Amino acid sequence: MPQLRIALAQVNPCVGDLTGNADVVVEWTRKAVQAGAHVVALPEMVLTGYPVEDLSLRESFAKASRAALDELAERLADVGCGDALVALGYLDRDEAGPRNAAALIHKGQVVARYAKHHLPNYGVFDEFRYFVPGDKLPIVRWHGVDLGLVICEDIWQDGGPIAGLGQAGVDLVLCLNGSPYERNKDDTRAQLVARRAAEAGAPIAYVNLVGGQDELVFDGDSLVMNPDGTLLARAPQFVEHLLVLDLDLNAGGHTSVEPVEGFEVTRTVISAEPVPAYEPQPAPEAPDALSDCAEVWSALVTGLRDYVHKNGFRSVVLGLSGGIDSAVVAALAVDALGADAVYGVSMPSSYSSDHSRSDAAGMAERTGLHFQTQPIAAMVEAFVGQLGLTGLAEENVQARCRGVTLMGLSNQHGHLVLATGNKTELAVGYSTIYGDAVGGFAPIKDVPKTLVWELARWRNDQAELNGEVPPIPENSITKPPSAELRPGQLDTDSLPDYELLDKVLDQYVEGDLGYTALLAAGFAPELVERVLVMVDRAEYKRRQYPPGTKITLKAFGRDRRLPITSSWREQSAALV
Amino acid sequence: MPQLRIALAQVNPCVGDLTGNADVVVEWTRKAVQAGAHVVALPEMVLTGYPVEDLSLRESFAKASRAALDELAERLADVGCGDALVALGYLDRDEAGPRNAAALIHKGQVVARYAKHHLPNYGVFDEFRYFVPGDKLPIVRWHGVDLGLVICEDIWQDGGPIAGLGQAGVDLVLCLNGSPYERNKDDTRAQLVARRAAEAGAPIAYVNLVGGQDELVFDGDSLVMNPDGTLLARAPQFVEHLLVLDLDLNAGGHTSVEPVEGFEVTRTVISAEPVPAYEPQPAPEAPDALSDCAEVWSALVTGLRDYVHKNGFRSVVLGLSGGIDSAVVAALAVDALGADAVYGVSMPSSYSSDHSRSDAAGMAERTGLHFQTQPIAAMVEAFVGQLGLTGLAEENVQARCRGVTLMGLSNQHGHLVLATGNKTELAVGYSTIYGDAVGGFAPIKDVPKTLVWELARWRNDQAELNGEVPPIPENSITKPPSAELRPGQLDTDSLPDYELLDKVLDQYVEGDLGYTALLAAGFAPELVERVLVMVDRAEYKRRQYPPGTKITLKAFGRDRRLPITSSWREQSAALV
Repeated sequence: MPQLRIALAQVNPCVGDLTGNADVVVEWTRKAVQAGAHVVALPEMVLTGYPVEDLSLRESFAKASRAALDELAERLADVGCGDALVALGYLDRDEAGPRNAAALIHKGQVVARYAKHHLPNYGVFDEFRYFVPGDKLPIVRWHGVDLGLVICEDIWQDGGPIAGLGQAGVDLVLCLNGSPYERNKDDTRAQLVARRAAEAGAPIAYVNLVGGQDELVFDGDSLVMNPDGTLLARAPQFVEHLLVLDLDLNAGGHTSVEPVEGFEVTRTVISAEPVPAYEPQPAPEAPDALSDCAEVWSALVTGLRDYVHKNGFRSVVLGLSGGIDSAVVAALAVDALGADAVYGVSMPSSYSSDHSRSDAAGMAERTGLHFQTQPIAAMVEAFVGQLGLTGLAEENVQARCRGVTLMGLSNQHGHLVLATGNKTELAVGYSTIYGDAVGGFAPIKDVPKTLVWELARWRNDQAELNGEVPPIPENSITKPPSAELRPGQLDTDSLPDYELLDKVLDQYVEGDLGYTALLAAGFAPELVERVLVMVDRAEYKRRQYPPGTKITLKAFGRDRRLPITSSWREQSAALV
Repeated sequence: MPQLRIALAQVNPCVGDLTGNADVVVEWTRKAVQAGAHVVALPEMVLTGYPVEDLSLRESFAKASRAALDELAERLADVGCGDALVALGYLDRDEAGPRNAAALIHKGQVVARYAKHHLPNYGVFDEFRYFVPGDKLPIVRWHGVDLGLVICEDIWQDGGPIAGLGQAGVDLVLCLNGSPYERNKDDTRAQLVARRAAEAGAPIAYVNLVGGQDELVFDGDSLVMNPDGTLLARAPQFVEHLLVLDLDLNAGGHTSVEPVEGFEVTRTVISAEPVPAYEPQPAPEAPDALSDCAEVWSALVTGLRDYVHKNGFRSVVLGLSGGIDSAVVAALAVDALGADAVYGVSMPSSYSSDHSRSDAAGMAERTGLHFQTQPIAAMVEAFVGQLGLTGLAEENVQARCRGVTLMGLSNQHGHLVLATGNKTELAVGYSTIYGDAVGGFAPIKDVPKTLVWELARWRNDQAELNGEVPPIPENSITKPPSAELRPGQLDTDSLPDYELLDKVLDQYVEGDLGYTALLAAGFAPELVERVLVMVDRAEYKRRQYPPGTKITLKAFGRDRRLPITSSWREQSAALV
């Protein structure tokens, strides 16, 4: 049985940066070749970054991607990587339109191209807008091993290229992925790869992107799976990593080029000779699985760090209210960027409590972030007095004066403003547009309030375990939440209890249950009606909200979009 | 040849309002029946409103739509419309998923259902996310005439249901549409209907929605076309209308139920007897075609009026700077809502010119809108002094204090804030986020600056022709544009000349030309580079911008979306 050493390069490209991404490919391919790899696989669209959205429709960008690929092929040969077989994703385009494509590179040439067949068009994906599906199955013989290629969604739908490769006959499948992190998704992924490996009748080497890209976080988790369901190797999540593994493969000597499953099959022989026998390395140890909180925290840190850095910022500024949301965002920012890159601002108004200031200051002391106090009473009074504002209008002016303050500091000093709202607030519209919703990035926009508390406790416990100072003041975790926009105000004046609210939201938003089904699930009619109307009316605010890392299926954004009109009105739509 | 009187009800439903929309259907069907119609056709998804976006994925909403349809069928019979055949669009759902469907109703029953086959998934459309395509062709014999049904995109793509109906054999095709207004689209539409009528071998009765729905405006323009390309009747644009026409049709006596073009064909006989001969009415006269400016102005007025009213507002507030953008938005608002519903606010800073105040006041005098002055110097000074802001940070605070002022008045008095930015500004990011970009609706967000001037002159000319006071002060049209955020500032300090800028933008944004192609088109390299980098960097601001009426193909919104990361950075992506 022929041997092959494969290397999966779990890397972090940046969308649109063809030059920088080519550098990433060269750097990691060199590492793989230095490690003796015969096959190097890099993720889906690593050369363009992923997802490229409307850039895919730009003919000039596709042309540049193709040119960058040719140049990269030559460069890899020039730097001594020409003898390896390198698989990577890029944007292609032919007469039918743009393609989400993979290339195999050898000795300075592109020796095969594959176009993704199954195009996801749900949730965060819109690939029916952006790509034309492929219907060709190139199979390449490399050191006697028949090698097939697929891309991401190709393994998430039944039938198609994997079934085709299984029927045509291959000895190894490379699966290039841009598969975003989603809470509790990881086990599904490994199980799925095992099922597809069985269908292909060959091991699958699954290589995924890592890092944050706009609202998405890719968690890596690259792996190699045998057709019998044995996990051969697995990379850690949320870090760049080179997973190197020696495989002992069937050389099936497959020759069929009959069309299968609607695909045209082509076979190219690069090398029929097996690699001379060598002593295999032991497989790397699989990393320990992360706990739910550790995984979510890592996703949020990764998303925040990459959003800031990929957008060319070096520091962030945020309002510190002493409450739990801003405390958790500050702790995430410190973990992502270091305390020296984080600027916290306490902005007390005449309604702010003493503990709001002391808890904010405590956060700064515990973490070492930069801290300043900017009272907003004078600005608020200028608006309220001149315009004669009362009630909700007066409350909102306070939040907006804080927004103007943070944006002023951002414009003056170059920090990115972080918005500190959580998913529960965002869902029900419990925020001030152009006020606390101000910011370039909203790290916990997809984290429900109850999970914010859970993460805070988990992060503090981690610190204790490591003998460090817990970053979040205990009082920020335990005190009853309040917006402090009028005397004695509490969140519970306007909202149901968060435990209950998050349960209804989860069923309505994530579970897509309607009014009747929610009543059947045991929730009280008044509660359900109240929550549904709030959610549907909040759509306008959500559309104006800054981006933030997605950790769930329905994270509010393009993947959950109600018509504005139907949602601003209390339409019957909400209550059916 | 059998006669039929058909009525196309070009109506304006509201997304999500099943009850209100059912009322609209009943009201207009009664009018049609009173006019003696044998067939009444209403637009695509009239019962749910269109587009319903993620509501389509909600099982409970589809169930409610089906229930509303059954109830509507009974109600139509109860109010004396049971003898007519009524075609209308609704949201259906079966085991395969949600359907963009049409129903035929007769005598209190749904007698046929059709599901849209071609699902548009480009520009403003995302129907691959929302619907499962249909593959059935129900044909109904009504007074001896064989009647087929299609929906909107079904006629915009080659092959499919129209070809199927043509082969199976029909005498009349009803085409239900939710076809948005797009500048210069109308002629394409009539030509297309003519081509499809020829393919079907039967007249097509094309009925379209009218009115604004969130960012879309439906212009109506319903029409009836003979297979020989003769336009038999046409409804006016931008108004609700009942188009009634007597037809003398072939009774082909078609009987084939062979599958065609991948469709299952079914035939149902409701009535084989032709209508007793009657004296036909003369066809209504076709309306005069609108000029380009008249059409765009009507679209903007319609979009603004319906956004305000469908969202439950009665009045709007906007900043009046004395400049052309706010003047045109104010004139649109007065045309849409009446002067008494429009509140203009002059918000001078220490850098504001005298003419900025006098031109704003002039606008109010000419139109009769409510006018007040709110100087912002005190608020600006409170921020600038306390935070130590200079340069761009100081400029932005002025725009943001205006935003807070308008939102304060909105919250206090219940007006909707209108943002006054134009498409050119939005394209290049020449605006202050949370400042002049503040608002619930941005009426001219899809109107390039040069067209803003053209519309202003056109609107004033129209007033002169009608012996009315031109709404826009001449000085607002002729003076050089300035943001007035620092002494002596002019737009041309930061931007290329607008004539030139709009030409580059049109080619880059609408024409999708790349850097090289723009140079080949004769633009200077420095200009092209400058504009492209501005556009790509402005994506973040555009995502935070309020919705506004779309009048072109690439109006910034879901239909033109660059990845934020690649666009905030000056990536190579922009320059290829």
